[in-house]
Amino acid sequence: MQRVYRLVMSCPDSVGIVAKVSNFIAQYNGTITEANHHADASSGWFFMRNEILANSLPFSKETFAEVFAPIAQDLNMQWRLTDTDEKHRLVLMCSKDSHCLADILNRWHSGDLVCDIPCVISNHNDLRGLVEWHGIKFHHVPVDKTNKQEHFDEVQRLIEESEADTVVLARYMQILPEAICKKMPGQIINIHHSFLPSFVGAKPYHQAFERGVKLIGATCHYVTHELDAGPIIDQDVARISHRHEVEDMVRLGKDVEKTVLARGIRSHLEDRVIVHGNKTVVFE
Amino acid sequence: MQRVYRLVMSCPDSVGIVAKVSNFIAQYNGTITEANHHADASSGWFFMRNEILANSLPFSKETFAEVFAPIAQDLNMQWRLTDTDEKHRLVLMCSKDSHCLADILNRWHSGDLVCDIPCVISNHNDLRGLVEWHGIKFHHVPVDKTNKQEHFDEVQRLIEESEADTVVLARYMQILPEAICKKMPGQIINIHHSFLPSFVGAKPYHQAFERGVKLIGATCHYVTHELDAGPIIDQDVARISHRHEVEDMVRLGKDVEKTVLARGIRSHLEDRVIVHGNKTVVFE
Amino acid sequence: MQRVYRLVMSCPDSVGIVAKVSNFIAQYNGTITEANHHADASSGWFFMRNEILANSLPFSKETFAEVFAPIAQDLNMQWRLTDTDEKHRLVLMCSKDSHCLADILNRWHSGDLVCDIPCVISNHNDLRGLVEWHGIKFHHVPVDKTNKQEHFDEVQRLIEESEADTVVLARYMQILPEAICKKMPGQIINIHHSFLPSFVGAKPYHQAFERGVKLIGATCHYVTHELDAGPIIDQDVARISHRHEVEDMVRLGKDVEKTVLARGIRSHLEDRVIVHGNKTVVFE
Amino acid sequence: MQRVYRLVMSCPDSVGIVAKVSNFIAQYNGTITEANHHADASSGWFFMRNEILANSLPFSKETFAEVFAPIAQDLNMQWRLTDTDEKHRLVLMCSKDSHCLADILNRWHSGDLVCDIPCVISNHNDLRGLVEWHGIKFHHVPVDKTNKQEHFDEVQRLIEESEADTVVLARYMQILPEAICKKMPGQIINIHHSFLPSFVGAKPYHQAFERGVKLIGATCHYVTHELDAGPIIDQDVARISHRHEVEDMVRLGKDVEKTVLARGIRSHLEDRVIVHGNKTVVFE
Repeated sequence: MQRVYRLVMSCPDSVGIVAKVSNFIAQYNGTITEANHHADASSGWFFMRNEILANSLPFSKETFAEVFAPIAQDLNMQWRLTDTDEKHRLVLMCSKDSHCLADILNRWHSGDLVCDIPCVISNHNDLRGLVEWHGIKFHHVPVDKTNKQEHFDEVQRLIEESEADTVVLARYMQILPEAICKKMPGQIINIHHSFLPSFVGAKPYHQAFERGVKLIGATCHYVTHELDAGPIIDQDVARISHRHEVEDMVRLGKDVEKTVLARGIRSHLEDRVIVHGNKTVVFE
Repeated sequence: MQRVYRLVMSCPDSVGIVAKVSNFIAQYNGTITEANHHADASSGWFFMRNEILANSLPFSKETFAEVFAPIAQDLNMQWRLTDTDEKHRLVLMCSKDSHCLADILNRWHSGDLVCDIPCVISNHNDLRGLVEWHGIKFHHVPVDKTNKQEHFDEVQRLIEESEADTVVLARYMQILPEAICKKMPGQIINIHHSFLPSFVGAKPYHQAFERGVKLIGATCHYVTHELDAGPIIDQDVARISHRHEVEDMVRLGKDVEKTVLARGIRSHLEDRVIVHGNKTVVFE
Repeated sequence: MQRVYRLVMSCPDSVGIVAKVSNFIAQYNGTITEANHHADASSGWFFMRNEILANSLPFSKETFAEVFAPIAQDLNMQWRLTDTDEKHRLVLMCSKDSHCLADILNRWHSGDLVCDIPCVISNHNDLRGLVEWHGIKFHHVPVDKTNKQEHFDEVQRLIEESEADTVVLARYMQILPEAICKKMPGQIINIHHSFLPSFVGAKPYHQAFERGVKLIGATCHYVTHELDAGPIIDQDVARISHRHEVEDMVRLGKDVEKTVLARGIRSHLEDRVIVHGNKTVVFE
Repeated sequence: MQRVYRLVMSCPDSVGIVAKVSNFIAQYNGTITEANHHADASSGWFFMRNEILANSLPFSKETFAEVFAPIAQDLNMQWRLTDTDEKHRLVLMCSKDSHCLADILNRWHSGDLVCDIPCVISNHNDLRGLVEWHGIKFHHVPVDKTNKQEHFDEVQRLIEESEADTVVLARYMQILPEAICKKMPGQIINIHHSFLPSFVGAKPYHQAFERGVKLIGATCHYVTHELDAGPIIDQDVARISHRHEVEDMVRLGKDVEKTVLARGIRSHLEDRVIVHGNKTVVFE
């Protein structure tokens, strides 16, 4: 995989944005390997993502950012520039269920998910062996009704200590306190085991069973302080029928959960997701 | 297609139900062409559907019913016996959108949906030509805020006059009054343009757009007096992205709506659906 | 729907193509409402499609083409410029099966497929009523083993007479002669009732049944002189099981066929498809 | 999970099979927890599977088989009786790719796939750590052009030594010799990375890329002596576009492969698959 810079931006839509940005890149002989843009008619907002071969440009990421800044300011952009040589740092949080965690670790181990994983944090010790076999540090931070504050203080300390830019709740099953959610907007990814906005909150498969739906789903979304209401990154469903009890839904749902979570993480790690309001643009 | 009887039943589960029923059929040399059963562990209820070649049996449907009645009583069954020679009578209701109606009419016309369609009722006149070209009577029964009662009285009169056993709301866009819903439980089929229970009520695609979901859906369900809350027969979804405005969802949703509605109608017409509480068993 | 020009192009990839084209458009204050590009690494080829608001530009389509020509020549482009005010002219060909034809006509009639349909040509008379009810001319051109040449001569004459730029074989069931295929490359769209390249040729559902596949499919592709081997525009599948006989596959396949064909036609009519070699770029 | 017997059978269709079998079970007060049957009209063959609560019956599996044998003989049945207390013994074979193997091991480890895994056999050593961490024996049996015979002799010896009734080729990448295939009909499960019968043999993603298909697939099937031509258990697909190079297909295909393989293995382990000719009945 060649080293690329990813220039990701959003700004109020106007005539000539693509021209200005692509001119800028062309003027330095930059080779664009992938480009996406989207003009959102309903919000009047423009979104763009470019992958540029790093060694086709005559300068470093830092100089790139400096030289580009005036254009960005001129167009009122929110933007970021990332470098595939500087990997995202992703902290995983889990509980007892292994399907999402094992799937992520296997993808990471085989090179399909490119990131650093400084540690895994869990309120249970069950998955320690699996994590440590992959050569990753495992922190057991127990939680019960009496020590929630201490638990989350320690969780936050570990996230900060590991210099993570991304936290993935791989079926962590605890509700993060508002303080942590607000500190990392667009950086905490959760997998909810329903097709949101159906079946918010606890026991979604039980809710689905009660309602008699014919499809179950999973939703990968960014965590905000409002439960299961953050910007959706990806969703998918699986077909069920009257033959499926709750435990069958749980089993079939695992496949959807892990696939959707992995897709969402991948989009995030490749800087393909732009959050705008409570929605996302995902450049696939 | 050969003439078959369909014996459809549900009862409290116990040992030997299949034996008793299949013995009964075998004793008269009945040829079973399709059989399904389902024991629902959570409710302790048993469901069964048999298709039996009519001319393999030595008696008429009426005699069949008479001879079978003691077994049914013994097992505390709710049951029905239908005959493919006696077609279901289906009244269609629509408004201005033609996609569901045109699809149903084409399937009926080409023999894929087997039923009689005594008439189509609509609060608008737009689709008269399409309906009449198919040789079906079209009733225009206008409705506005001032004449709801008269509208629905006339609708009910037309349904009764046509001796319909099934009513299909093919994007009819009006909420049926409780009285009609209660008179025809498990007989009125609606297509709702969302993946229920998400986005109940009006303008589901607008709601979906606001929430930023990545899949849109449609739900075919029996109508009860509670809006969009009746037993679900079938559901499906289509993938969307940030590129899709509400009007794109409307367009893409049409394909899901018409396909799901047609599947649901077909299951109903073939007596494959058993309503139990607020859920369905659908023997595909 | 606002009037837009669609600028669709492909050329050998190099640095600065997007810059040159978007500069050109920006310099005349053109408002881009949708833009897509794709650099194909394996072939070294670049593809681009822009939708530009017609009334944001100071010139007509003809002047646009004239002014743009030097850039196109400079970049060695194959390109076309279309105008949504000049609708595509689409001739439909069918046989006896109505599902694809009825679906296309309903989409056209309700404004979801934007094009002119000068006529429908069929080797059978069965669908005349349906076509004529939509206000479209119907030509019955019978064919048997003895008059193939005359049949296709007449077909070709009708296509030319109707000034069609697109021909859609909506389950036409006859193999077009090489001469017609070669005259209209990338302009004749077929729906094949299998997931190509599986089950080329006659009776694909029978072939699928014999092989015991668990999914059936449909393929929308451009017709070339080689049977069922032209560039694929779209494909989809439906799940089947051991319970499905050939006639069930035929029935379930109809839904896939008509949906895939409609998607393919729509992409074609919106100038979203670029043929390159025996493959397509489809900008959705 | 309660202990159940699974009675799985196929025989020429005739009147009264269900009656005879369900009578037999009812006469001993056996509780049927799941029942499926299928009459195949085209072959005139009948298939049936019953799950019966073991402790609802007054006898052991051996006595069950003895008492049932006359009925089976009378109906000309091919049949088997299995006991969930006697787990299937499954040998896994792999090469270097870990996605299928890691997925199966995680499902087994978390109790979703119920079987014994006496060992994993591989022609490479790469996945030893992963396997051994799960507490399973790993046999490295290298192969090259010069030692194929020795390799397969050793493979066969290990299969026999482990008393396996099932072999799963989890992306093993070598063609098993005819002798092994013929010794274990309906017992060796392979995952092929295409939607068979498309793209038989080597490098199916390269073939798919060349053909320009819009969906890629995977097929789980029983191995016979004819390459990629055995009875299909399950298949699925994933959508791709012009943006996907071969390596993207490989990556996206992994998710389809592992999901389809896991579903196929599960159906096999639960005795839901009946091979008939070159096709399967899969009772889901």
